Amino acid sequence: MALTEVSSNKSFGGFQKVFSHDSKELGCNMKFGVYLPPQAEENKKLPVIYWLSGLECSEANFIQKAGAQRYAAEHGVIIVNPDTSPRSLNIPGDSEAWDFGVGAGFYVNATQEPWKKNYRMYSYVTEELPAVVAKNFGVAEGKQSIMGHSMGGHGALICALKNPGMYKSVSAFAPICNPCQCPWGEKAFNGYLGPREGGDWASWDATELVQKYNGPPLELLIDQGLEDNFLKQNQLLPENLIKACKAAGVPAILKKRDGYNHSYFYIASFIGEHLEYHVKHLK
Amino acid sequence: MALTEVSSNKSFGGFQKVFSHDSKELGCNMKFGVYLPPQAEENKKLPVIYWLSGLECSEANFIQKAGAQRYAAEHGVIIVNPDTSPRSLNIPGDSEAWDFGVGAGFYVNATQEPWKKNYRMYSYVTEELPAVVAKNFGVAEGKQSIMGHSMGGHGALICALKNPGMYKSVSAFAPICNPCQCPWGEKAFNGYLGPREGGDWASWDATELVQKYNGPPLELLIDQGLEDNFLKQNQLLPENLIKACKAAGVPAILKKRDGYNHSYFYIASFIGEHLEYHVKHLK
Repeated sequence: MALTEVSSNKSFGGFQKVFSHDSKELGCNMKFGVYLPPQAEENKKLPVIYWLSGLECSEANFIQKAGAQRYAAEHGVIIVNPDTSPRSLNIPGDSEAWDFGVGAGFYVNATQEPWKKNYRMYSYVTEELPAVVAKNFGVAEGKQSIMGHSMGGHGALICALKNPGMYKSVSAFAPICNPCQCPWGEKAFNGYLGPREGGDWASWDATELVQKYNGPPLELLIDQGLEDNFLKQNQLLPENLIKACKAAGVPAILKKRDGYNHSYFYIASFIGEHLEYHVKHLK
Repeated sequence: MALTEVSSNKSFGGFQKVFSHDSKELGCNMKFGVYLPPQAEENKKLPVIYWLSGLECSEANFIQKAGAQRYAAEHGVIIVNPDTSPRSLNIPGDSEAWDFGVGAGFYVNATQEPWKKNYRMYSYVTEELPAVVAKNFGVAEGKQSIMGHSMGGHGALICALKNPGMYKSVSAFAPICNPCQCPWGEKAFNGYLGPREGGDWASWDATELVQKYNGPPLELLIDQGLEDNFLKQNQLLPENLIKACKAAGVPAILKKRDGYNHSYFYIASFIGEHLEYHVKHLK
């Protein structure tokens, strides 16, 4: 679990770093970002918030475009953001589409050949990476939350719903809320999990999982821009998730943002609000 | 002077837009960014701040990485950021080096072949672009300031010093303060302006210009990260500019930032402070 520091840039009094390490779950070298706020220098144990990115992203997009460092420095929280899939494996078919394979791990554990050995982003994000983080940085035990965007919003929601109590809070920007019912999800789940019948798709879908949620009180914060083309193309389906939350008695907040699209300009506009929300639950 | 809208993204209640137009000064199609804060919708006339980028940048870097939109929205100012050189001209030799030609216009008006017809970034930035902006956006007459980074910090300083009274304030992140005395500047000036003897280099160098400044009171705000490799390599030479300012009686502030390098992580950390400084002078 040795880490290699890839880059380190002072940012808002703390440091935005990128590390690489050999991942056991994924069978390849992986990069991830860590923002260490100024408070980390005082040897304090700090809360950690995970950010999961969307299709085609690496760890770099969030680091460069979201502007989260300012707020993390203000609140004294660590932000960790992994890559979106295994890299450099050259599995046949892993680079033929932008929405499957490299850059598109969908935060599941694949069950199908040739993916099942390496495409284990769910275990990587919920087990291996937190262990690496706990070993290498001053994180406060049990104080973690999770958030993400688009495919990563789906990832954040399923990580929280499948692990009651593990995260103090969860939020998602323009998440893929019901992958079993949208083209992106159907393609990915077919590939990674096999055909719908018998593929256990429901255990990787927030709208399905929320119906069976049984754990400490958990509120879902869903954020959605109303000029988002993928919303209009029915890839995101927040209404399905909100309906399922209501039926299941799981509280959910849906923030609708007039005029905003699917981009990091949208994320940057509201990341401060989300971090404030998580900090409220973490402190 | 017709503008084509290349992109528009809602950001902090306003819009981050990119436009293209055919530039007469540069003889090519150029892109530039405009952030219109929410106050622009009320048909108010707003102050405008120009941002000039550094070597290798296009208009995109500042827009995506500096996080300036948040502060511009708070203060109700427009930010305009041009590209760093003419594009797509395919002048022999314009793409052989990262520090000369494309992406490296140095904000001068070239006098040498084959550059003098198109490499006129100084006139573009101080005359043509402000006219385009005044014609197309609700800017308050006479309320403009200028800032930049590295090569663009040099650009901001010479634009302000060569045009007394045109800008209400000027600031620069890690500027090339004395291009006549550093390798980047010597290479660019040799190419665009001809040999040092007879090339009138001094009229494009902030440290030289400040010695002859004769106009309304102007303060130079210089910002410099102390872990900046280009500072260590003597490309930036802020001490030369500060010394010249002292000798000339031109007030200058040098903000030294411990631990910060030359990157946009550094710029993002202090862009809010710079915008506040400009707004104080503009309002």
